[in-house]
Amino acid sequence: MKIIALLTDFGLKDGYVSQMKGVISSITDARIIDITHDITPHNIREAAFILQNTAPYYPVGTVHLAVVDPGVGTDRKGLIITTKSQILVGPDNGVLIPAAKRLGDLTVYEIKNEEYMLKNVSNTFHGRDIFAPIAAHIINGVSFEKLGDKTDKFIDLDFGEVNVSKKDVAGKVIYFDHFGNIITNIDVASVKDIFEYNKKIKLYINDKQKDAVFVKSYSFAKKGQLLVTIGGSNYLEISLNQGNAAEKLNVKPDDKIKITF
Amino acid sequence: MKIIALLTDFGLKDGYVSQMKGVISSITDARIIDITHDITPHNIREAAFILQNTAPYYPVGTVHLAVVDPGVGTDRKGLIITTKSQILVGPDNGVLIPAAKRLGDLTVYEIKNEEYMLKNVSNTFHGRDIFAPIAAHIINGVSFEKLGDKTDKFIDLDFGEVNVSKKDVAGKVIYFDHFGNIITNIDVASVKDIFEYNKKIKLYINDKQKDAVFVKSYSFAKKGQLLVTIGGSNYLEISLNQGNAAEKLNVKPDDKIKITF
Amino acid sequence: MKIIALLTDFGLKDGYVSQMKGVISSITDARIIDITHDITPHNIREAAFILQNTAPYYPVGTVHLAVVDPGVGTDRKGLIITTKSQILVGPDNGVLIPAAKRLGDLTVYEIKNEEYMLKNVSNTFHGRDIFAPIAAHIINGVSFEKLGDKTDKFIDLDFGEVNVSKKDVAGKVIYFDHFGNIITNIDVASVKDIFEYNKKIKLYINDKQKDAVFVKSYSFAKKGQLLVTIGGSNYLEISLNQGNAAEKLNVKPDDKIKITF
Repeated sequence: MKIIALLTDFGLKDGYVSQMKGVISSITDARIIDITHDITPHNIREAAFILQNTAPYYPVGTVHLAVVDPGVGTDRKGLIITTKSQILVGPDNGVLIPAAKRLGDLTVYEIKNEEYMLKNVSNTFHGRDIFAPIAAHIINGVSFEKLGDKTDKFIDLDFGEVNVSKKDVAGKVIYFDHFGNIITNIDVASVKDIFEYNKKIKLYINDKQKDAVFVKSYSFAKKGQLLVTIGGSNYLEISLNQGNAAEKLNVKPDDKIKITF
Repeated sequence: MKIIALLTDFGLKDGYVSQMKGVISSITDARIIDITHDITPHNIREAAFILQNTAPYYPVGTVHLAVVDPGVGTDRKGLIITTKSQILVGPDNGVLIPAAKRLGDLTVYEIKNEEYMLKNVSNTFHGRDIFAPIAAHIINGVSFEKLGDKTDKFIDLDFGEVNVSKKDVAGKVIYFDHFGNIITNIDVASVKDIFEYNKKIKLYINDKQKDAVFVKSYSFAKKGQLLVTIGGSNYLEISLNQGNAAEKLNVKPDDKIKITF
Repeated sequence: MKIIALLTDFGLKDGYVSQMKGVISSITDARIIDITHDITPHNIREAAFILQNTAPYYPVGTVHLAVVDPGVGTDRKGLIITTKSQILVGPDNGVLIPAAKRLGDLTVYEIKNEEYMLKNVSNTFHGRDIFAPIAAHIINGVSFEKLGDKTDKFIDLDFGEVNVSKKDVAGKVIYFDHFGNIITNIDVASVKDIFEYNKKIKLYINDKQKDAVFVKSYSFAKKGQLLVTIGGSNYLEISLNQGNAAEKLNVKPDDKIKITF
């Protein structure tokens, strides 16, 4: 089964995403599945984080099309990135990179060939006029070499450093999800030697201390209790059982996090 | 045509629903259709109500996957329920039961077989790691007996009592929809002998009386007039023609409703 | 590939859209793609604008089903409109007309034949009970003549006049998009002889003057600068580079716009 997966910051109201789906469906019968269209407008890092966490669950051969593109219409490049198992398409602003690295073995092409774009390319909507048809032609089997030129220059992006010592770990806030879970950049691998379930821990948010408990899943804490757990994307999450931690603690992306086990 | 229909309280922003779709698409080419992902977080009754009203419109053989799961990671069971025409999959917290009863002839299985789950099951996201692959294997034809064990123990859920007399009917508020229609638990069957279109009626919300009119459809009332009608799911609805009744009347789920015809 | 594209003001929470998809999938295996379901409730003009801008991107033969229907249950007609390349289905309130005119060569049918509707048509949800099955039967090849009768009486709708002189152009606000871009009814064709990129222009909103710059795309303006550009649907847009112009300027649909080049 051929799949094109879509991620944008366009929202679903205006019909922009649907215009992309119309363009794709005019070129290929591949199935189109949404990743999300609710990225905070222009927030490249947020998009990169969600794409990295989601792409690995898709089958081999899936083409991921990610359009968060504040530089549309300028000379920023458009990229195709092939990896061990899947293909990524989007603007050269870092949005594709963490997903590409997670998938592994990347080769990067700069999109060049106007034959595979819409006839009249607008200056404000390359998602529809360039990236959508390019993704559709890729899934139809057009070779990467026909669509663009290999390059090793592209804009990088990562989620920041994590510092681990014998009893504590320090990183930062990356993202809040729909439930108000505060997702940090601290990967489970960083803490697997020091954490222990159901132990009380000290949690520091911008150096301000809170008491919390480290648990296997949300409902092992009392209702409303502050907890840390390993979220579904293998990052440490700060949560309230059946509550909204992001609202309650009023944290922001990039706030410093330290946890003492 | 094989269909898996999805209902969650995950929202669409975070990519969680898309991760489920990636897992499903890695196992089956069945079509995936959304029921909703905007259930109020952790609101099992709301999810059960929407699932019950929506599932009957799907073709025979559809697998409905409903994940509103505040107890994820604890020892709450996972269920497969077969009915006369369709199959339901989700946690054992009542979310599947009203739909299953509406579809009729239920047989309940407890999900057991780890072979049909993802390799590394997380503690916080069984929607992706257990329920999605189970639903995909069901639509691919794996037998229920292979996936789990028959059980007759499961958590029940209903929408409360309705009391009917010769001239009035009493129940409660279940849900407000997108238009601000206030949907009650009073089924059209309860009132079909006593109502009459275009008659003035007395409406009591928590014993406070309002004048309203009983009409065939919204626009038979004057613009902004309070009305009661039979909604698309065959429950009595309290509405304002081209207005938002839920906001205007400030009602809450479980508020008492009485209507005197 | 057979496609039914859906546009409603139902929102995605309540399951109403999904009920329509269930009905459609019970009749046809055509693919169902969303245009949008987030039209402001009862806002026919907004729906007509988005449908007109989106439909042309879909392949020949697509059936567009648009349900914004404040008159549901009254004697307002239901329409099928065929055009040069695609088919439109929905209520007779103007919602289909701008898209039909854009696609060209319209023929209008009034929906009549109850055989192709659901058995029990509700009074409040014709989107599900009449329009969805009609659209599904059309894509399956049932002839228009079987479904309804030709008519030349239908409700018209347009987006208002544009006045062009040698150095300025006047029109009005139609819509704000997700990014806060303020979309006017001024088509690129109206201004192509008078505009010049990167020139300062005078912008009048309800006769109040603002300085702005006319640019090829958003990021040719400074961050936060007021700009006018040609949007992806070929209308003039008033925007802030990486900001929300609609919020900042506090404009409303139908506000008067004049631009002096």
